Amino acid sequence: MDFAQRAHDHNYRMDPIVRSRLDDDAYKWFMGATIYEKHPMVNVTFQLENRTKDVRLADHITLAELREQLDHAQSVTYTPGEIIHMRGQSYYGHSGLFKDSYVNRMAISKLPDYELSVDEEAGQFVLRSTGNWLDVKHWEIHFLTIVNELYARAQLRLLPKSKLDIMYARAKVRLYAKLERIVKEAPELTLSEFGTRRRHSFLWQRWVIETMRDVLGKQFVGTSNLLHAKELGVEVKGTIAHEMSMVYAALAAKDGEEAIRRSQYEVLKDVQTVLPERLRVFLPDTFGTTQFLEGFPQDLLPQAWTGYRPDSKESVEAGEEAIRFWKSKGSDPASKLLILSDGLDIDLPGEPGNGSDMIAIHKALHGRIMDTYGWGTNASNGFRGTVPGRPDLMRPISIVAKAVEAENRATVKISDNTAKARSIDPRELTRYLQIFGSQGVGLARETLV
Amino acid sequence: MDFAQRAHDHNYRMDPIVRSRLDDDAYKWFMGATIYEKHPMVNVTFQLENRTKDVRLADHITLAELREQLDHAQSVTYTPGEIIHMRGQSYYGHSGLFKDSYVNRMAISKLPDYELSVDEEAGQFVLRSTGNWLDVKHWEIHFLTIVNELYARAQLRLLPKSKLDIMYARAKVRLYAKLERIVKEAPELTLSEFGTRRRHSFLWQRWVIETMRDVLGKQFVGTSNLLHAKELGVEVKGTIAHEMSMVYAALAAKDGEEAIRRSQYEVLKDVQTVLPERLRVFLPDTFGTTQFLEGFPQDLLPQAWTGYRPDSKESVEAGEEAIRFWKSKGSDPASKLLILSDGLDIDLPGEPGNGSDMIAIHKALHGRIMDTYGWGTNASNGFRGTVPGRPDLMRPISIVAKAVEAENRATVKISDNTAKARSIDPRELTRYLQIFGSQGVGLARETLV
Repeated sequence: MDFAQRAHDHNYRMDPIVRSRLDDDAYKWFMGATIYEKHPMVNVTFQLENRTKDVRLADHITLAELREQLDHAQSVTYTPGEIIHMRGQSYYGHSGLFKDSYVNRMAISKLPDYELSVDEEAGQFVLRSTGNWLDVKHWEIHFLTIVNELYARAQLRLLPKSKLDIMYARAKVRLYAKLERIVKEAPELTLSEFGTRRRHSFLWQRWVIETMRDVLGKQFVGTSNLLHAKELGVEVKGTIAHEMSMVYAALAAKDGEEAIRRSQYEVLKDVQTVLPERLRVFLPDTFGTTQFLEGFPQDLLPQAWTGYRPDSKESVEAGEEAIRFWKSKGSDPASKLLILSDGLDIDLPGEPGNGSDMIAIHKALHGRIMDTYGWGTNASNGFRGTVPGRPDLMRPISIVAKAVEAENRATVKISDNTAKARSIDPRELTRYLQIFGSQGVGLARETLV
Repeated sequence: MDFAQRAHDHNYRMDPIVRSRLDDDAYKWFMGATIYEKHPMVNVTFQLENRTKDVRLADHITLAELREQLDHAQSVTYTPGEIIHMRGQSYYGHSGLFKDSYVNRMAISKLPDYELSVDEEAGQFVLRSTGNWLDVKHWEIHFLTIVNELYARAQLRLLPKSKLDIMYARAKVRLYAKLERIVKEAPELTLSEFGTRRRHSFLWQRWVIETMRDVLGKQFVGTSNLLHAKELGVEVKGTIAHEMSMVYAALAAKDGEEAIRRSQYEVLKDVQTVLPERLRVFLPDTFGTTQFLEGFPQDLLPQAWTGYRPDSKESVEAGEEAIRFWKSKGSDPASKLLILSDGLDIDLPGEPGNGSDMIAIHKALHGRIMDTYGWGTNASNGFRGTVPGRPDLMRPISIVAKAVEAENRATVKISDNTAKARSIDPRELTRYLQIFGSQGVGLARETLV
């Protein structure tokens, strides 16, 4: 009998969700490198939004437990060993990617204070944090993992042990079958794990990554989670996110419409001076992909960019558009990367996935462009339908944490999917829609990522 | 860090398979009650046989590890608490079933010494033990669980952790789906767990029993394993086995053919004086069911018997025969128990089982006779096809440990299935076939139980 262990187990205060500052998406650090150089003193607000309105999160999670986890996350700091690791780690084969001054700035970074309340009518939490962009941006992933895991735990509490047991067994069998289908039917499909933001739990995500590595072998190319990558010795993967273009546009807004329009390319110009070519993968859809590609300026060399990541357009359609774009710029599309990461899944016999089938997309695009896949929700939170007799449980929710303001001005995201268009200031949204139009923007579709 | 635990884990000598003398089938105790009264001084030999000849067990299991486990089993004795439990436990609602003198005799029972060698050409172990029937009979289940678990471990050693993980997950999901099908499609089907002899492992069997209990609720009526029943608070189930008729016949053999023929009914006459009605369930097939039922003597009251357990005839055919039998004896078949336990399974959509579908049998017989099911191999060792990329692994083997001699004379089993006919003395087999004929005896069919 280990009396100390027993006493500890019976008395421990809580099961912390954020165990390390590195339990974060790599793109936060990749974007930070440019922000540190170009906008080190900008004030930004990140705010949580639950797009799955019919799940009243405040009915499942108490304010007290949410606050406890947020406070705990805020108390976690980068350890000296983690800072050494981030400095020494190589990314896409590049070592010394991050300047010492940037790494030292991150070493003293703290998550700013947050504001938390409940919108009783909607049953949703109002959660936001304002601070220096370099610091506050790291709340994004922690807001998401904390809320997702607390919601998952609330549902797990409803289940007896035998149902929990079979739930995990079914989720394992299902994921394994999907990976086996990839190996068998699409031996050239490469895949990264992108599921941190929507994961069921930290330990489940680790199991998912280990299983991907074991089953996919060389077809598994990495994870976007810095901590899992570090602990499992797996490659780090990541690009940049919408927050760059959204904040850049908000900062430009005081200078008028043309400044806003141009700002989406200023992001690329800045990133190009900081990140090496292999990491230069842009996001075209913040204000609509079609206008973005059409307006791609002559003075911005597309050849300097390895590829791009469509994030809100149907994947094959997005691939075709990318192939046309690279050709129009005189580049061979087959040498350009296309990272697909929006609502992906793998269909199984008799069991269609909860997203677009990666193998079907791959078969449509492979060889014509360097397609690769970032698999998120349906891998790291693939429990839908696994609870015996309770098909309503374990449905992943679509939550996001976005940069909603920069220097006190509302940001705007339009995307290629009207369901994802957002601003906390409707006037700003209208203004942006006038600037960018809606060419190539699709109607709302059911999507989770 | 629990240093003591770590030191123990690193130094422990072996993982014992037989942890308790109660890790045994209940029928051994039920038969023992009669043997203690009627034949307390008979010498019997039990011997292992692997019917799955193409699995060369001696290539998978070393002589040393087998000996180590057998020696360990032999060193295990009934604890005072176990003896108290066996005395106090009620069986089928009967408390005080076992006489004090019988329980006291068992309390000092030890497993006799065994002889072990390897038949190098066949790749099989030659394993036998001779001793007083009351003692040696308990080797049966231990021989089987030890060899089965060592064989399972040998295969598990071939697999990396991730394949082990998915193997167990798949086996869990499959068993759960089978149980759910029973609840949904056959809400009056009742089931006991009979898988000790063929189990994958002790702990897996425990999971199977717990899951049966949780999913089937009242449809789960017990287990034949005394230890699991005790520890899980589950009902004990069991009947009598072929060894009774086989030994009785061998003891009668010196008195001629008619004595051999009559001996199969002497078993019932003796049991009837010892076990209460609810436990009187005979086994009709030791020398062929059809002749057994036809010759059922007038002086043996079939009304005194609750039912019987066909064990080697196709189940629906056996059920029809039972219905005809009870009618011919003036009993209402609907009041008689029919325990089916031979090679049972549950089919799943797109995945036929590895045995007869219990639901189909139940639909054919239910209401006409009190059908109930003893599910063995395909529950306690249902791993066939679960190992990714290795469909050859985890196939259960058909091993038995039979009473092959009594008082230096070979026993014989004929059964309803020529694949199961056996004697270590071919002359005795021929003699018995002449006595009993082969009416109603089927040709060999693929079966595991």
